Amino acid sequence: MTTVRDAAFELFRERGMTTIFGNPGSTELPMLGPLPDDFRYVLGLHEGVAVGMADGYAQASGSVAHVNLHTAPGVGNGVGAIFNAKANKAPLLVTAGQQIRSFVTMQANLTNRDAVDVPKPFVKWSHEPPRAADVPFALAQAIHHASLSPSGPAFVSIPMDDWLQEIEPIDYARQISRTVTSRSEPDAAQIAALAARLRSARNPVLVAGPNIDASGGWDAAVELVESQRLPVWASPATGGNRIGFPEGHPAFQGILLPAVGPIGLTLAEYDLVLVAGSSVFPYYPNIPGDFLAAGTELVMITSDPDEAARAPIGDAIVADVALTLRALANAMTDPPTRDAPPAREPAEAAPESDPMSPSTACASLAAALPQDGIVVLESATSTNALRNQLRPSAPGSYYFAAGGGLGFGLPASLGVQLAQPDRQVVCVLGEGAAQYAITAFWTAAAYDIPVKFLVLRNGEYSILKWFATMENLTGAPGLDLPSLDVAATASSYGVPGVSVSGRGELDAALADAFAESGPRLVQVEVAAGMTLA
Amino acid sequence: MTTVRDAAFELFRERGMTTIFGNPGSTELPMLGPLPDDFRYVLGLHEGVAVGMADGYAQASGSVAHVNLHTAPGVGNGVGAIFNAKANKAPLLVTAGQQIRSFVTMQANLTNRDAVDVPKPFVKWSHEPPRAADVPFALAQAIHHASLSPSGPAFVSIPMDDWLQEIEPIDYARQISRTVTSRSEPDAAQIAALAARLRSARNPVLVAGPNIDASGGWDAAVELVESQRLPVWASPATGGNRIGFPEGHPAFQGILLPAVGPIGLTLAEYDLVLVAGSSVFPYYPNIPGDFLAAGTELVMITSDPDEAARAPIGDAIVADVALTLRALANAMTDPPTRDAPPAREPAEAAPESDPMSPSTACASLAAALPQDGIVVLESATSTNALRNQLRPSAPGSYYFAAGGGLGFGLPASLGVQLAQPDRQVVCVLGEGAAQYAITAFWTAAAYDIPVKFLVLRNGEYSILKWFATMENLTGAPGLDLPSLDVAATASSYGVPGVSVSGRGELDAALADAFAESGPRLVQVEVAAGMTLA
Repeated sequence: MTTVRDAAFELFRERGMTTIFGNPGSTELPMLGPLPDDFRYVLGLHEGVAVGMADGYAQASGSVAHVNLHTAPGVGNGVGAIFNAKANKAPLLVTAGQQIRSFVTMQANLTNRDAVDVPKPFVKWSHEPPRAADVPFALAQAIHHASLSPSGPAFVSIPMDDWLQEIEPIDYARQISRTVTSRSEPDAAQIAALAARLRSARNPVLVAGPNIDASGGWDAAVELVESQRLPVWASPATGGNRIGFPEGHPAFQGILLPAVGPIGLTLAEYDLVLVAGSSVFPYYPNIPGDFLAAGTELVMITSDPDEAARAPIGDAIVADVALTLRALANAMTDPPTRDAPPAREPAEAAPESDPMSPSTACASLAAALPQDGIVVLESATSTNALRNQLRPSAPGSYYFAAGGGLGFGLPASLGVQLAQPDRQVVCVLGEGAAQYAITAFWTAAAYDIPVKFLVLRNGEYSILKWFATMENLTGAPGLDLPSLDVAATASSYGVPGVSVSGRGELDAALADAFAESGPRLVQVEVAAGMTLA
Repeated sequence: MTTVRDAAFELFRERGMTTIFGNPGSTELPMLGPLPDDFRYVLGLHEGVAVGMADGYAQASGSVAHVNLHTAPGVGNGVGAIFNAKANKAPLLVTAGQQIRSFVTMQANLTNRDAVDVPKPFVKWSHEPPRAADVPFALAQAIHHASLSPSGPAFVSIPMDDWLQEIEPIDYARQISRTVTSRSEPDAAQIAALAARLRSARNPVLVAGPNIDASGGWDAAVELVESQRLPVWASPATGGNRIGFPEGHPAFQGILLPAVGPIGLTLAEYDLVLVAGSSVFPYYPNIPGDFLAAGTELVMITSDPDEAARAPIGDAIVADVALTLRALANAMTDPPTRDAPPAREPAEAAPESDPMSPSTACASLAAALPQDGIVVLESATSTNALRNQLRPSAPGSYYFAAGGGLGFGLPASLGVQLAQPDRQVVCVLGEGAAQYAITAFWTAAAYDIPVKFLVLRNGEYSILKWFATMENLTGAPGLDLPSLDVAATASSYGVPGVSVSGRGELDAALADAFAESGPRLVQVEVAAGMTLA
């Protein structure tokens, strides 16, 4: 005989899930106390922070991360971050406590009345086991659901009196030792057909999406591009939680704009568009036009059946992105007759201004960022500028909220750093974006997580003013953010922060921050407005 | 012809809903810009703050409050606060933008894919109109749902291209001018039967719950208690978002503890328990025992059919609480033969200690609080102590999160102050609780909302340590909160804050804070642990 609790921790241990992110409440205490010595608990002061950290950790470690929340209100506070994790395809086990079983029917206080509905529609699976004996099995299932393609969050609600119940091996032993995998190659006929289509194309192009990185397809993509002399565009930044191709590579042409008309025009010169690891496409603003020019065909490779079904254009192959690219690269070893595409120009320096352009701040960061550095970004008007100035070119170097929800960047950077302790993580934030998970600074300080934060301060929700201009709207309230001082707030939580203006001060402050061993923050005044380069 | 937008604002104006709380995104701009001159927008830097402010405003104004959120991630970030609003029965119209209609089927970025599911199960009604022309009608319905008994949040998702569509009067004029009411008295036979039951009781008692205050039943409750010489207990603090009876009244006996065994014992001396405006009961920790002693009967008066159905004991009358108490008071004018209950003792001063007991801090506040002051409370281990020391005795003097979710107190205090500009609002927070909606300090400063904040700092999640001790659990991680400095964080957002220790410093700091016209914060060191008096 063992307890539900012992069986559950055996499961977590077997899956390598010995880090638990969370924000506890009374209903979680019977799970958490005492925590086995080989486990680590990382506290967030708000559930959005706990989920965001787990999201970053899951993505950067490539394995399921566990986040534990407090019954109905705690899960409720985490729903926005669970939305982001779903969009990022981050494999998360989300657990939450529930009132004791005998209190649920009377709806005693803190009963999670419709527990399985709370995180919907943003979880792949949601369950509350009807018996204590089923808890380990439910947790095992949730971990499988989280990791199966397309990966994402799965939820289990657990009555707090279940943990100390005794159970028999028949209830957990075989269930928790199962392995389940869904990584699959397309059949050989599909690869042959795609190779033939690519071989006969006059001017094909690769659009590289985030799942190339997540699936480990980076090398195959580079090999295919180089052997076939393909130009490469990145899928639109809006939907790109990772980058799929080295952005400093000579074949890299730039980032597609996230709108129907511009994408159709950009791709008009190609006769075959191969999209790997992205939806087609994460359009956002409504700039009408043709989806594709006449004479341009499109084939997408995705491991997500939903992305395949809902694309408005093109054919789709549903299979593991890395394995498909590898098979395609293996089938396409002969060089084509065409020349390699012209190499992209180096990033230009932005004109001097006061305050500086966000591009200038990104250029300063590019100069200071250590080798193998990782950027976690949440600064809506500077996304393209940062990628252009930094041109991240190693796998796992860039993370962003694919769903567009704010509050991801700050906590995710902590999770990424914990998963990649040997690489320096930098978190680039707008001062408005930083507010959605601001208490993550406390966790950075309390756990001495050495992320460096660069806050681009422009005094407004600049992306919204840009949208308002695009849509000829005036007089919308709530778009100005006077007097926000993230350096002061971070300092209040124990992360030393400085405010600077001008390139010289910024260069010096970043150098100082990188020279320190703990978390540090640099806030710099930048010009308002959208910056694409 | 008019536009959807003009019709919607005409509806809001007609309902007196000219204050909009929100956190905007691109999908909300077509609603917000330009905001008519007679409307006011109150920005929160996180959706939990926006919803929390609306919750406080709705409760303190007694009318439907409007909060506007940003498509899927924004609503997701607000779900925890919507849970609290549901538990508080706060009538909220929650609106959110949606992608343009032509982008929804392809799930373009920021599409709220299953929009009506996101705020479930915490909204009474959730809808996305299938045509632009139905938007004003849907908003009108949502406002009705929010205000109908039991009141609570209702949700409408609105595609962003709907606002400028032209519609005909037939689509909105009659719909938005309708009035709908659900306030009802029980039938006369029920009142007569209850009056007879009360008349024949030997030793009856009133348990006063939050909905007495919300329904405007305060005077009727006092009249009934005084004429019938009833002792009064408050329903357990855990479920009490308001107080139902003046706690300085001689008939007031105290606050029921939120557990089955203790409540059964406390009520064992009475033969008839009349519960008004509360569930039976908001039990929380599992302290077993008899629900009621043999020989004790219970009748609840509630306007919430769900509360009536799910109570494990007693009879229930479903009707408006204030009207039922009024009818009962009118039917019970003859004094009974029994004596009035013994008056409760004045609050005792806690023994001196260093740091001081939270009770001492509450006593300091009680001495300093202006006449007609309002307290919004989120300090879990001090709830009963604060009510004992302050004994709030006017309607609408006390607000608390009935559902137990953290993040309510800080933003709700701003909403209460905006709804009650002539009464001084004080927000009492634990330093852990303050973190769940910490950016509300920015709104307090930016809009110069003159709430005074009292932070009781004890360096831990004290309520959880208390629970762990109750449950013989040890070694749970994440219960300590070293180095949290809410005064510093509030100052970083523009709310001047001071940290003090000792009664003398606290008295002086509170006097200084009340003498200032704007928001001010006082943080005081207090002893850890649960304090009931």
